Amino acid sequence: MYESIRSTNLQLPNTPSGYPCKSETNVTADDFVFSGFVPGSTILDPFNVTLTTAFVTSLPGLNRLGFSAAKGDFGINGTVPMHFHPDATELLIIVESQLTAGFITPAKVYLKIVKHGDIVVFPKGLLHFLVNTGVGKAVIFAALSSTNPTMQILDYLLFGNDLSTSIIANTTLLEVSQIMKLKAQFDGRG
Amino acid sequence: MYESIRSTNLQLPNTPSGYPCKSETNVTADDFVFSGFVPGSTILDPFNVTLTTAFVTSLPGLNRLGFSAAKGDFGINGTVPMHFHPDATELLIIVESQLTAGFITPAKVYLKIVKHGDIVVFPKGLLHFLVNTGVGKAVIFAALSSTNPTMQILDYLLFGNDLSTSIIANTTLLEVSQIMKLKAQFDGRG
Amino acid sequence: MYESIRSTNLQLPNTPSGYPCKSETNVTADDFVFSGFVPGSTILDPFNVTLTTAFVTSLPGLNRLGFSAAKGDFGINGTVPMHFHPDATELLIIVESQLTAGFITPAKVYLKIVKHGDIVVFPKGLLHFLVNTGVGKAVIFAALSSTNPTMQILDYLLFGNDLSTSIIANTTLLEVSQIMKLKAQFDGRG
Amino acid sequence: MYESIRSTNLQLPNTPSGYPCKSETNVTADDFVFSGFVPGSTILDPFNVTLTTAFVTSLPGLNRLGFSAAKGDFGINGTVPMHFHPDATELLIIVESQLTAGFITPAKVYLKIVKHGDIVVFPKGLLHFLVNTGVGKAVIFAALSSTNPTMQILDYLLFGNDLSTSIIANTTLLEVSQIMKLKAQFDGRG
Amino acid sequence: MYESIRSTNLQLPNTPSGYPCKSETNVTADDFVFSGFVPGSTILDPFNVTLTTAFVTSLPGLNRLGFSAAKGDFGINGTVPMHFHPDATELLIIVESQLTAGFITPAKVYLKIVKHGDIVVFPKGLLHFLVNTGVGKAVIFAALSSTNPTMQILDYLLFGNDLSTSIIANTTLLEVSQIMKLKAQFDGRG
Amino acid sequence: MYESIRSTNLQLPNTPSGYPCKSETNVTADDFVFSGFVPGSTILDPFNVTLTTAFVTSLPGLNRLGFSAAKGDFGINGTVPMHFHPDATELLIIVESQLTAGFITPAKVYLKIVKHGDIVVFPKGLLHFLVNTGVGKAVIFAALSSTNPTMQILDYLLFGNDLSTSIIANTTLLEVSQIMKLKAQFDGRG
Repeated sequence: MYESIRSTNLQLPNTPSGYPCKSETNVTADDFVFSGFVPGSTILDPFNVTLTTAFVTSLPGLNRLGFSAAKGDFGINGTVPMHFHPDATELLIIVESQLTAGFITPAKVYLKIVKHGDIVVFPKGLLHFLVNTGVGKAVIFAALSSTNPTMQILDYLLFGNDLSTSIIANTTLLEVSQIMKLKAQFDGRG
Repeated sequence: MYESIRSTNLQLPNTPSGYPCKSETNVTADDFVFSGFVPGSTILDPFNVTLTTAFVTSLPGLNRLGFSAAKGDFGINGTVPMHFHPDATELLIIVESQLTAGFITPAKVYLKIVKHGDIVVFPKGLLHFLVNTGVGKAVIFAALSSTNPTMQILDYLLFGNDLSTSIIANTTLLEVSQIMKLKAQFDGRG
Repeated sequence: MYESIRSTNLQLPNTPSGYPCKSETNVTADDFVFSGFVPGSTILDPFNVTLTTAFVTSLPGLNRLGFSAAKGDFGINGTVPMHFHPDATELLIIVESQLTAGFITPAKVYLKIVKHGDIVVFPKGLLHFLVNTGVGKAVIFAALSSTNPTMQILDYLLFGNDLSTSIIANTTLLEVSQIMKLKAQFDGRG
Repeated sequence: MYESIRSTNLQLPNTPSGYPCKSETNVTADDFVFSGFVPGSTILDPFNVTLTTAFVTSLPGLNRLGFSAAKGDFGINGTVPMHFHPDATELLIIVESQLTAGFITPAKVYLKIVKHGDIVVFPKGLLHFLVNTGVGKAVIFAALSSTNPTMQILDYLLFGNDLSTSIIANTTLLEVSQIMKLKAQFDGRG
Repeated sequence: MYESIRSTNLQLPNTPSGYPCKSETNVTADDFVFSGFVPGSTILDPFNVTLTTAFVTSLPGLNRLGFSAAKGDFGINGTVPMHFHPDATELLIIVESQLTAGFITPAKVYLKIVKHGDIVVFPKGLLHFLVNTGVGKAVIFAALSSTNPTMQILDYLLFGNDLSTSIIANTTLLEVSQIMKLKAQFDGRG
Repeated sequence: MYESIRSTNLQLPNTPSGYPCKSETNVTADDFVFSGFVPGSTILDPFNVTLTTAFVTSLPGLNRLGFSAAKGDFGINGTVPMHFHPDATELLIIVESQLTAGFITPAKVYLKIVKHGDIVVFPKGLLHFLVNTGVGKAVIFAALSSTNPTMQILDYLLFGNDLSTSIIANTTLLEVSQIMKLKAQFDGRG
């Protein structure tokens, strides 16, 4: 009966507007709290960064609210590689150390060094990246404007699946030798 | 030409969908970065909490992106009083200490003790609050799903403007003596 | 096949965008008509007002249309207490007598005496109220911009569930004695 | 600063999301109240019905709220002719007498006799109509889910502008003699 | 996990936001390709036009994407009769021959002769039509801003179902003899 | 007064929901028709493809309608290089010859050979490409679900602006020699 409480029933098939809702009598405060930011759970190879996510699948109260969160732990020189989120703007809070953050449009590169306490925004759909340019480890929190955002990393998209080398070469003008090296690194099978 | 770059021109009147956009040639990386989280800039009296906000008016790159951020610095027993945001879900990241967080529906109270590294979600439009129940100061970051959210604090709404005492009494059943005391505390003039 | 006919199947679990749809062959004109405005069906205690609602659960043709309706019958001095609808703007048609209508923002109180034939608008998410300030009974119709709006009444939220007295006191600065009296009146158990 | 108060500045050009907003300091309670339902202001010829509208242009507080209202006064046998609203669902409240209300899809006609106190819904974009089938006058109030809805009346669209008789004949298969008669009645010039 | 891949499961009941989604592991490239534009599959009687549609029911990858397509094959003098789409703007690409295209508002008729390579736009919800005014056959492609748009053809709505002759006469002022002739032509049973 | 006619006034600054609207009295049928698909106007170097666009800036009637169109003329082996549209789904109609069309998610490549009369859909935000794999020239029309979509071509984003070689190397793992070669080809200055 309350429009604002629509926690997720992950057993039912997804709909275009998100997962069907739990009955409200089954919703508890735990549906709205996430305590799982344990470093090390998702390693971004070979970029020396660990990501942990609080998406609707692990924080079911997010259903219909258009929001999710993530944490990034950067090693020395750790890098979140060039990527984009088709359905989510990202708002970053720098918790520890100093990073170089940037996003790109065809006409212009937006680049900034950000440090502890700064906020940086990556508009929805644009290519962006982060490099730990401080000394020591870096930590960031991110809020994303989707309950279940995708992370489209260029290297994984181009070199980590079965896309054929000739199509990659034709549509990017990368050299075949370069493509082969990166496919070896990212398990490309095409 | 690029849909995703619509930074704000605050000189022009607001529209139902947000401020008119700067010409893209005038947009720079600074439009997307906020470094102003200096504790002390906005004190929530008499609750011993300081809030600092990164809304579209101070972080113009947020225009059209449906997002903003805030930081809360809590003193001992500091409290974010009972309030709601009509247009924004709130996603909280606990950075320091331990807090009691809750939101309310007519049928149920959702209450949780959260600590460093936890995430908690307050769905759009619901009454909620935070109490520093740790020892010492507490710090939180918040992301909100609106570029310019309102903070509707019950005490300020009921006792801080020129709403008449008789209307408050009729529509809340609070006693006149209680209303008068809180009006004295929150500068009510009705 | 027709986008505009998506009457409700209440047997299936709700989704973030509303209930799944009946097959169109099972939809009839009755799905779009409500005749149940019998005074007395829902009494707002102790405010001397009766509300009757035509929401998607009783008027299934409303599904996906973002609309619902209600009727209010006011006794002498009857009052719709201070409340808000997180997801719905309200448009009121005054059918009988004279009322004092108001809504509140932190900066300003919007107050007006309205009478037979007047229209008044309460924007989504704002605290508002109605007091019968005419002689005799009053009648209003309301249209709401949600198929299933919530009525968040302050007294019921604060004093009608199991929210603890100490949290109420901390987050509203109401005195404990006042809280105890209203909890007695609204069945608070906290 | 308050998202929910965006009353209209009609002096500035419209935008795709509605008129630019008045500065909040210039908004008053009058922006949210309409008292102009004086019968006779807009006569629907030759159908013996008078319509009065409370759209954003006369009720500026409606801006961004996706709502408007209208009143219909029906003479004996008065008819709201076959029409549709491209951008608005309509929710009707029958205030006086009895009407036959209907809307049409290619597959089915949804028809119902409604009387004092009934609610009837016309889903967005569908052809619909009302006929006063009671004795004496009839009165209805309507809420519409657009701040400035269009009323697309078939007779006015086909026979009241400069659409050529041959195009009408080709695209409707109406006979030329029928078209000429209705053009005479509705001032068609094509 | 990928927001953008939500192909349709037509076995489950529709929701207000579209059909539930296939599991992504069952989605293939074929979900996003339609090869069925075989002329003759859907004849628009008696207007000498054949329409073929690629809606979500035959092109399941369209789910959630707000898009569909159609092809029109016009015989000599072939006509797409006066109609509207409540939920879809239409963008037409003229592939072969020359047509007269138009849409109508109460105030104005928008009319244009278009030919091979031209684009014409019919805004959502407005009455529009097409007449083959070239020599020989004509071919058009259409993109529509809905995954499952309705085609509301006036003749089929008024004369092709069980709407009674007296209601048609009252709400359109068409003569009974004209109504009877068109009912005979379009199988009206009212 | 008519919601559906909001053609564009390009002289005024853009808003988050699109350009302010022309006064309706200044709107004509020409605002809704585009005849400019002259091959050769926009050459995609060095990929042997020419694109022509009908976006809101050249087809002003598209304002608020969420739609635009483009035409692609492919030379022998012509290729639309790897790119994405952050805000637009693309629906392609193959008019002439045969192409290999594909889009990519991290988990899967969706690849298909399409020919004259086929429809193919590229969901919003996903990397995709087209290669003319027929004999001779190829022609396609595209409809896009944005009035002013961006074309984010990887090569132009990475190698055609002033992004530094070291950042590209760190965030993509491409070799410096490869980056230098493509910068030479796409005028990179970083």
